Amino acid sequence: MFSGAQVSLYPMSGDFVGIILDAVKALDPYRDRLRIETDDISTLLVGPPDLLFAAMRDLFVTAARTGKHCVLSAAVSRGCPGEPDDAICGINPSAGRTESLADRISAALAAVEATADTGQPTAAQFSLYVMGTGTHMEEIYGCIDFLKRSGVFDRSKNFCTRLGGDAGAVFATIREAFYRFGDAEGHVTLDITISANSPTKPETKR
Amino acid sequence: MFSGAQVSLYPMSGDFVGIILDAVKALDPYRDRLRIETDDISTLLVGPPDLLFAAMRDLFVTAARTGKHCVLSAAVSRGCPGEPDDAICGINPSAGRTESLADRISAALAAVEATADTGQPTAAQFSLYVMGTGTHMEEIYGCIDFLKRSGVFDRSKNFCTRLGGDAGAVFATIREAFYRFGDAEGHVTLDITISANSPTKPETKR
Repeated sequence: MFSGAQVSLYPMSGDFVGIILDAVKALDPYRDRLRIETDDISTLLVGPPDLLFAAMRDLFVTAARTGKHCVLSAAVSRGCPGEPDDAICGINPSAGRTESLADRISAALAAVEATADTGQPTAAQFSLYVMGTGTHMEEIYGCIDFLKRSGVFDRSKNFCTRLGGDAGAVFATIREAFYRFGDAEGHVTLDITISANSPTKPETKR
Repeated sequence: MFSGAQVSLYPMSGDFVGIILDAVKALDPYRDRLRIETDDISTLLVGPPDLLFAAMRDLFVTAARTGKHCVLSAAVSRGCPGEPDDAICGINPSAGRTESLADRISAALAAVEATADTGQPTAAQFSLYVMGTGTHMEEIYGCIDFLKRSGVFDRSKNFCTRLGGDAGAVFATIREAFYRFGDAEGHVTLDITISANSPTKPETKR
């Protein structure tokens, strides 16, 4: 299972370069376990979902702690046809899929519950795309049920789901949505946006 | 056919609020033809693909002309199950689909060719997701063929395709990819990132 993300970090500050360079240091503990490549648009992270989401969370929280309005945007993908399989992405191919949808929802809720707080409030939205499977809508409805019970659900918006809460729980919730639902070997993608310190309104959960 | 986008604009500047407020004025000519709703994460645009992409282009180019590093990120969707059909999104349901894939590629190339320059260079990347159809990969390969001949193709990256060139041609190319390929009534989404004025390297096409 090939899994990875194209990740961009946007600090709304004249010192965006400095904030990005500092935040990228938060990826250092992951460099031996993730493939990391950067260009002027995004940084590619390739590796298993737990490390991907931990790395994105640490990158984002480090930038957000400057107090500047920061946004992390990422295209996250697993099982994409045409991508080379890579040992670095090892994920148990049957993980969770011998379990019923109800059991996977329970496991996802338990994983979010067990996640440590970061102290960084965030607002987030994401779209989950499950490609080319007969169980497409059933898996999406199961995932929506999980999201509504995750503790960070805010509301449905057109084309996406909005979350709010501590960055720890928000990233954990999106991670669980990404890999517990849809075929274990299927092509599943996420379009995620995580925001902190927006001046527009308080980032409290509604 | 319900089509729309959740759009975010990120000016990497301490004056991001002023740049955004100025750029949003570029949406005024579209307000009678698009549904537009804003919160602290994104702006929802609902309407037919030609207006959606024209509005996003004008929003982005207005911000980029400040010379600041600006990024537009959007989740674009058509035919999403669960979204209400809305008269504002009227698109000819059979537009192009009585034509062969080869003819649609030609039409897409002609549409990009006919697009006026904006004078704003950009670098862009996007992912196209065609959900739940038997012709999934055939349509994607047809779309990739179009992209490679579009004049703004840069290269394939993991999980996405990179473009570079004038904002006019770049937005037109992504618009054509969005609505000429995949089932006319199918669920197709885009995850797009358009960047200008990055200090990292020149945004010339490679």
